[in-house]
Amino acid sequence: MTFSAVQSEIRPVQWNGHACVLIDQTVLPGIYRTIEIRTSDQMATAIRTMIVRGAPAIGVAAAFGMVLGWQEAPQDDPITHLERVAATLRATRPTAVNLFWAIDRMLTVARREPSFARLEREATAILEGDIATCRAIGEHGLLALPAAPERLRLLTHCNAGALATAGYGTALGVVRSAHREGRLERVYADETRPRLQGARLTAWELVHERIPVTVLADTMAAHVIGRGLVDAVVVGADRIAANGDTANKIGTCGVAIIAKHYGVPFFVAAPWSTVDGNLPSGDQIPIEQRDSEEMRAIEGVALCPQDVEFYNPAFDVTPAPLITGIIVESGVYAPGELAAAGQAQLGR
Amino acid sequence: MTFSAVQSEIRPVQWNGHACVLIDQTVLPGIYRTIEIRTSDQMATAIRTMIVRGAPAIGVAAAFGMVLGWQEAPQDDPITHLERVAATLRATRPTAVNLFWAIDRMLTVARREPSFARLEREATAILEGDIATCRAIGEHGLLALPAAPERLRLLTHCNAGALATAGYGTALGVVRSAHREGRLERVYADETRPRLQGARLTAWELVHERIPVTVLADTMAAHVIGRGLVDAVVVGADRIAANGDTANKIGTCGVAIIAKHYGVPFFVAAPWSTVDGNLPSGDQIPIEQRDSEEMRAIEGVALCPQDVEFYNPAFDVTPAPLITGIIVESGVYAPGELAAAGQAQLGR
Repeated sequence: MTFSAVQSEIRPVQWNGHACVLIDQTVLPGIYRTIEIRTSDQMATAIRTMIVRGAPAIGVAAAFGMVLGWQEAPQDDPITHLERVAATLRATRPTAVNLFWAIDRMLTVARREPSFARLEREATAILEGDIATCRAIGEHGLLALPAAPERLRLLTHCNAGALATAGYGTALGVVRSAHREGRLERVYADETRPRLQGARLTAWELVHERIPVTVLADTMAAHVIGRGLVDAVVVGADRIAANGDTANKIGTCGVAIIAKHYGVPFFVAAPWSTVDGNLPSGDQIPIEQRDSEEMRAIEGVALCPQDVEFYNPAFDVTPAPLITGIIVESGVYAPGELAAAGQAQLGR
Repeated sequence: MTFSAVQSEIRPVQWNGHACVLIDQTVLPGIYRTIEIRTSDQMATAIRTMIVRGAPAIGVAAAFGMVLGWQEAPQDDPITHLERVAATLRATRPTAVNLFWAIDRMLTVARREPSFARLEREATAILEGDIATCRAIGEHGLLALPAAPERLRLLTHCNAGALATAGYGTALGVVRSAHREGRLERVYADETRPRLQGARLTAWELVHERIPVTVLADTMAAHVIGRGLVDAVVVGADRIAANGDTANKIGTCGVAIIAKHYGVPFFVAAPWSTVDGNLPSGDQIPIEQRDSEEMRAIEGVALCPQDVEFYNPAFDVTPAPLITGIIVESGVYAPGELAAAGQAQLGR
């Protein structure tokens, strides 16, 4: 695959008026291809199989899944059908709260103004709003980064990039803003086993934009941070509890513990739609368990002996005391300030 | 490969009277095969390419490499040739100190008693001594493990097993002793990217002996330890400085930081031949950098986009304050007691 084949700005979820076009994130970086999603069931499958992944991108995709659901609905009772579609989409992945947020927003609009055009406009607003949100996260994050050195070495885990959002990215939005302002020396990207989103997706995004990136095995973070090669860690989030505890891709908590040990600031970057004000703490965040086949083999190549057991939690929870700041579209907050800020900003 | 094809006790390095027979650890667990090493150059290649790996096993293999070197030597000046062989073997891998220890021991014997039979006897003594040492490490380690719960959940990183020694293992020696005494519930094995020694070798060894093992991606250690599923961590070592700082497979330091964060004891298990009394601290331990191709692909399957950069240090150094105890063949010592114990035990 050549980069010239890829549009200049990465847009993992797009709407063409009758179908949703997804970048197939299961085959990157070897193959760049898009898939046209024409039914709500296809969208549920795409989310479950991680053709589209990343909390904000899942929210946007689910919103268009609801538009597709409306297209399929019988004229005499579209809302009942749409509620079934909502249930199917909700069941795809349990941890990222943006999924539930977007589905609820679409259902609310559908009940108030039951028309295809209105739902299409709402999903498009969610998509465009997410890009604007990511750009704001990037700007706020840039201001929160350490003042020295002038050119920063940032470490990230998994992919919280353009591919994980409608575009631009959350953690990689901060990276992009830093790069644009000449404040970025290099990104260290954990490869992020088992699904290797760092090696496959973060590296692909950054190479695409000629942002210097070094891929690390997940085992190398402590060595690299301990040697003073990292000025700050920036990661995304799948769900943030009211107290600031943050669920994100498995391995995030370990990086946070290591960063704390070495006194390196650790930032979470995510939209307000990732904050679940209903959960007092991270203990209540459901953690998705995925198929052990993800562990056993990479692209069909078995790594382990037969008969071995696996444990494959997709997320972990980083406790608030390990987090320096949470970067959202309205600013950067200490975890303990998040709930009050959310009420002030969003009237929650 | 069926386990019945494998001898009941795993012996990665054996001598058949004229050649050294190695288990090819680069193709496990998919294929079990042995390779006959007939020249010292072949042995150097086997060590460099990790057909044989693990600090104690490398020491034993290098000792037989010296026996092979003697077989190749001209009768009129065998010692000069043997010194060249020693230099070749020393250049294979820089971190594991057992390599240098075994070569020096063989050179000393060759200068004093220059005969094939004497060298063969010395290498065999190193091999048999290593097995006895591992068994003693297992017994001492068992006594140092937490008294409760009755059946322990132990986490290990990389492979410090029978495959990494002449047999029985260091960290897995402790596991084997605990299992034999009914004190083992389960082993959690980090898969240990980039070379996956945990997923490939530790899992293979333990499944072979029906010891319950769960393979974890390296990203999962913090989640599993944080949930209270691990009673102690036990790892091997490639070189231990006089102050107890320990070089071991990349990722070990991160696990130690996480264990400390959660108050879980962290043990290093290794023979005295891994202790480098000449180095005051871990800062002086040379860290091998390996080819980035190990990161880019698994069995030829590319994981990353082209043009990405990699960093591939093979080891990291765990500072002594993170280590609860160092288990050697004479007992278990706090890192700060190691130097004095070494002088008392070995007259160093």
